[in-house]
Amino acid sequence: MSTLPASLQILIDQLSRFPGVGKKSAQRLAFFILKNPRDDAVAMAKAIIDVKDRISECSQCHNISEDDPCDICSDLKRDHSTICIVQESMDVLAIEKTGRYRGLYHVLGGVLSPLNGIGPNDLNIDDLMPRLDGIKEVIFAINPTRDGETTLLYLLKLIKNKGINVSRIAQGLPMGIDIEFADELTLTHAIEGRTQL
Amino acid sequence: MSTLPASLQILIDQLSRFPGVGKKSAQRLAFFILKNPRDDAVAMAKAIIDVKDRISECSQCHNISEDDPCDICSDLKRDHSTICIVQESMDVLAIEKTGRYRGLYHVLGGVLSPLNGIGPNDLNIDDLMPRLDGIKEVIFAINPTRDGETTLLYLLKLIKNKGINVSRIAQGLPMGIDIEFADELTLTHAIEGRTQL
Repeated sequence: MSTLPASLQILIDQLSRFPGVGKKSAQRLAFFILKNPRDDAVAMAKAIIDVKDRISECSQCHNISEDDPCDICSDLKRDHSTICIVQESMDVLAIEKTGRYRGLYHVLGGVLSPLNGIGPNDLNIDDLMPRLDGIKEVIFAINPTRDGETTLLYLLKLIKNKGINVSRIAQGLPMGIDIEFADELTLTHAIEGRTQL
Repeated sequence: MSTLPASLQILIDQLSRFPGVGKKSAQRLAFFILKNPRDDAVAMAKAIIDVKDRISECSQCHNISEDDPCDICSDLKRDHSTICIVQESMDVLAIEKTGRYRGLYHVLGGVLSPLNGIGPNDLNIDDLMPRLDGIKEVIFAINPTRDGETTLLYLLKLIKNKGINVSRIAQGLPMGIDIEFADELTLTHAIEGRTQL
């Protein structure tokens, strides 16, 4: 039985490290690279390295950025008296896409997770505190998971005596769902958070 | 609304060129690269380039290989009087995995497809003919699609007067399928190709 060329096997192994990419998909991706022009492969390889070399964290909000401070923190037209606390940079991206938030962000870099040994010192919490001076509103946009709730409660305790208006983004029915298929907890949040018409 | 760092956007665009990888998945893959150490990114970029630099086609069977002739064509323990004709290198890989075939291969590099403007000159057919001298058996392992059938019939006409034993791999029920859910054509092939017990 013949085996794969060594360099192809290495590429398949590399690609199957991607989240959600199994052995079979990695093989399909590798053959795609193999079939396409060398220039395309060079462009992809360059993009992979460039992203590591050019992007780092904003020293203020910890969002990913090619500049420091990032273009959000340095944008004087944004509302610098509001901070939205999120887990990851991808969450910033998602919220920015709505175009409905004009304040600043603070990226925690994860959530507290005692079971996984992730404590407050593993997150960007220390430098959140000095940022809160002069802030009028803090909005939590943390995933509604158990660890997310733990993190929210932990931060709430640190923030609550600072006279800042604190909120969390609404929980309820997502668009397009049938109420009969909504899980109990979602429905509970939807009922408790009902809005006056 | 803040946009993505340029280098990240480029990487997402590059990754979404992969077959079956949409914008959303490409974004997840890009963030994976961003979160992991630079060494990992370098290893992946290197693997992408290496595969293009080290792998080429075997000049005899057109299978992908780091050597020419490939390790199958140059393996004297294999049966050099049998050739299995396949569409792509991935098919060689799949058949090799069964461990049940010990002959040589010939990779066409596709199938005839008049609608897509792919004719005999676009496939590795010309240099198949000289290879058939002294061959005892030709096995077709071409996908049972319309274009596949066209290709098979075309090649059959070229081969048939050479006194070579020609066969195609069996069509019938795949493992694990319920007969009630099998499509008509598959079931037709299964009935017509029934084997004596």
